[in-house]
Amino acid sequence: MLKIGKYEFKSRLFLGTGKFSSLEVQKQAVKASETEVLTFAIRRLDIYNPDQPNFLEMLDLERYTLLPNTAGATTVEEAVRIARLARASNLCDMIKVEVIADTKTLLPDPIATLEATRILVEEGFTVLPYTSDDPVLARKLAEAGAHAIMPGGSPIGSGQGLLNPSYLRLIIEESPVPVIIDAGIGSPADVVQAMELGADGVLLNTAVSGAKDPVKMAEAMKWAVIAGRLGYEAGRIPKKPYASASSPQEGMLTS
Amino acid sequence: MLKIGKYEFKSRLFLGTGKFSSLEVQKQAVKASETEVLTFAIRRLDIYNPDQPNFLEMLDLERYTLLPNTAGATTVEEAVRIARLARASNLCDMIKVEVIADTKTLLPDPIATLEATRILVEEGFTVLPYTSDDPVLARKLAEAGAHAIMPGGSPIGSGQGLLNPSYLRLIIEESPVPVIIDAGIGSPADVVQAMELGADGVLLNTAVSGAKDPVKMAEAMKWAVIAGRLGYEAGRIPKKPYASASSPQEGMLTS
Amino acid sequence: MLKIGKYEFKSRLFLGTGKFSSLEVQKQAVKASETEVLTFAIRRLDIYNPDQPNFLEMLDLERYTLLPNTAGATTVEEAVRIARLARASNLCDMIKVEVIADTKTLLPDPIATLEATRILVEEGFTVLPYTSDDPVLARKLAEAGAHAIMPGGSPIGSGQGLLNPSYLRLIIEESPVPVIIDAGIGSPADVVQAMELGADGVLLNTAVSGAKDPVKMAEAMKWAVIAGRLGYEAGRIPKKPYASASSPQEGMLTS
Amino acid sequence: MLKIGKYEFKSRLFLGTGKFSSLEVQKQAVKASETEVLTFAIRRLDIYNPDQPNFLEMLDLERYTLLPNTAGATTVEEAVRIARLARASNLCDMIKVEVIADTKTLLPDPIATLEATRILVEEGFTVLPYTSDDPVLARKLAEAGAHAIMPGGSPIGSGQGLLNPSYLRLIIEESPVPVIIDAGIGSPADVVQAMELGADGVLLNTAVSGAKDPVKMAEAMKWAVIAGRLGYEAGRIPKKPYASASSPQEGMLTS
Repeated sequence: MLKIGKYEFKSRLFLGTGKFSSLEVQKQAVKASETEVLTFAIRRLDIYNPDQPNFLEMLDLERYTLLPNTAGATTVEEAVRIARLARASNLCDMIKVEVIADTKTLLPDPIATLEATRILVEEGFTVLPYTSDDPVLARKLAEAGAHAIMPGGSPIGSGQGLLNPSYLRLIIEESPVPVIIDAGIGSPADVVQAMELGADGVLLNTAVSGAKDPVKMAEAMKWAVIAGRLGYEAGRIPKKPYASASSPQEGMLTS
Repeated sequence: MLKIGKYEFKSRLFLGTGKFSSLEVQKQAVKASETEVLTFAIRRLDIYNPDQPNFLEMLDLERYTLLPNTAGATTVEEAVRIARLARASNLCDMIKVEVIADTKTLLPDPIATLEATRILVEEGFTVLPYTSDDPVLARKLAEAGAHAIMPGGSPIGSGQGLLNPSYLRLIIEESPVPVIIDAGIGSPADVVQAMELGADGVLLNTAVSGAKDPVKMAEAMKWAVIAGRLGYEAGRIPKKPYASASSPQEGMLTS
Repeated sequence: MLKIGKYEFKSRLFLGTGKFSSLEVQKQAVKASETEVLTFAIRRLDIYNPDQPNFLEMLDLERYTLLPNTAGATTVEEAVRIARLARASNLCDMIKVEVIADTKTLLPDPIATLEATRILVEEGFTVLPYTSDDPVLARKLAEAGAHAIMPGGSPIGSGQGLLNPSYLRLIIEESPVPVIIDAGIGSPADVVQAMELGADGVLLNTAVSGAKDPVKMAEAMKWAVIAGRLGYEAGRIPKKPYASASSPQEGMLTS
Repeated sequence: MLKIGKYEFKSRLFLGTGKFSSLEVQKQAVKASETEVLTFAIRRLDIYNPDQPNFLEMLDLERYTLLPNTAGATTVEEAVRIARLARASNLCDMIKVEVIADTKTLLPDPIATLEATRILVEEGFTVLPYTSDDPVLARKLAEAGAHAIMPGGSPIGSGQGLLNPSYLRLIIEESPVPVIIDAGIGSPADVVQAMELGADGVLLNTAVSGAKDPVKMAEAMKWAVIAGRLGYEAGRIPKKPYASASSPQEGMLTS
């Protein structure tokens, strides 16, 4: 069971709702993933226009916890303003803090992310900041009261997987709050690697929405999260330089 | 559906039966893995001693296809003799050819493996040779009539995973028969990587039997095979050097 | 020619002076490396005790530019105070800003490093901050006026090499000031990798002082920096998935 | 000093002579590399046509040992015939055995390479077989009397570097004769990695001839070989998971 602030989830897979080819494909992928948490950009949600087709209408909102994010924010002020707007919609008091430093890499601004986290924790949000894989910054975010830490594996949408598993492991080992690997995951193998490092969960979007068959990939990701978590709990064998016979090399054959 | 010679399997996970702490743990792990193929060393099976406790008695043999191996053989002659002995027991006509070059690395002898494969194909066996990750040797084995190719990821029992995914991919792309990655797998992440390369299956032993919780690891491996296969079929996103927004960075927020 | 602020260097190898087994070995290693820049911790230099043997006395100070660092500082204030103390000694106006977040990882504190850099630039120092491999922070340091950026390859003294070459490359591509890879380098291969990424230089310490033969390793590192730089300038071949004959496979042999 | 059969070399860099843009560039690159051994395909050498411009005429043959190769051979018979032709030219009794399995990968045929090696050793050649990174095959080649083993890092001309350093290390540790890493090297970093593994030398061609500036790359490779060898001899530091201060973190600063 994954606990983030006052929330509890059976599934350790968070799914983003951007970039699907259609709302119908998105709906099927969400279902296949068996996720309980859906992220979306507040910017994308036209909550003031009742006439527009809306992705939320396609979903059974009783079944999902919504995790709005502050995508599009490039300053502390923008992130805070978007977060407040999200809360005003009464959808959820969780917020994924995302303050982007530039549009080329979409990497998070470490200083602004930390400051926005401080403010939103103070205001009573359940705060999940998207951050780099810097273990020191992750520690500062936890000290600032973040309810979970969301370090990126690699740049958003790049599909490069986990560029620095060594630092991600360090973050996981030290963090007093859950660690959700967010951004850069490209395939189920990346998910399993993240979960075997001990991550408490993963957040996916492009890896599913951009796959040739998004619904099948959503199912693949569901099993990958479970395989990785079970593998982490089961305790893998150590790596050895040479060999170790699984079948005895000498035996009772005497013919 | 995985087809090897005249056999068909729903599960793409082959499980070795050596090295479990007890026959009871092995039985539970076999069950949790939902494997349909069990490998074992003919040398280990005391088929002439009815009084000894026997791992086969613990299993419902109707449910499993047995894949005896020639572990312990260091020459063509030994491998062929062990294979004939296996067939004489009427357990199965499949044989995993394993001719080991030395006890330090347990790496396969390429020349003897090819020769033993030729002879056993000639004698009507369904032959699955354990081989290195050399694409040329894999091709020669297929030309010699092998019904599947079993390249090792790394030395048996080492848990080092796939040392050369590039050559394994080459083998998979070219092989006219199924490719089962055998040896060296250490964790579910290795399994998913193998399956995403396009492998038709994996054979595990130490990774399960040597885990702290072998039964839980067996279940992890079951899901890893499925996640990797689905991911392969679903078609992953390409890797890009930088970023690609999953949430739109500009939008309708106008407050 | 490497230019940092008002300084120019022919050698792209900076060498740390800590942890050698003796001042004599250090002297020989410094000579073999042909470095022009020596770093040292102000804390380690007992500049008030004329009776103590001092590593500076062993060196021909006309030949080297000294780069004092603020090792030991854990706050902005400590770093600034140590830097001022260094300048008061009239040894050099260059300062390597090092504000460490914890003693387990010795990773740099991103917030304090940026703030100390701002202050010391303001005070007219030539400032080289030791930082993480976060491209966003590196950009902020350059904007703050740093004269060079010193991202770590991996934790100080760990010998793990470059954990995230992808982000280091990004830093190098974007930086308006020289980039010196600092920390974590373990062997000449790491040095060549850094230089081939386009780094302007490397800073080494433990990799030399901790080698079995520090003087020979210092020479190895000298050639590694040159090999990597020449390789970068010469423009390497692209990687291709398969093969490309260097010897013609068809030809004039007609016997 | 590198000893192969009756030959001794100061340089550990072997250079191929194929694929340069001109004989003049080749000549300068050969000089910059300070190699002592030049490889070339017998097929390419029109030794019966005195009118054709010939790369050998461009070189001071007193300074170089020539290592003809059997490139183009796809069978034992072809390789042996080409080798005999090479010896008949009185250029050298060394022969690089190269029996290629297919033109897509140019990977060596393990069976034919071993057989050709046996025959040519018998006939008194100094034999250097180009082989895969299979440690078992390397051992068999040494047992067959090969005077050096030349495992490929990756497919010829691919620039992928060392795909399986683990097996190359195994080959090096076990080999009673020198090991020259041949094929696939793309940059100086690959060379240093090979030499730090303990290789006795490297053979390059495309990495130099295909570089944007082949002469500068030749010089880079010269230093890379030296850096890697010195680094191997000097004994690198072990890798540690976290940090180890090179500057003392506590000290005498008392102001």
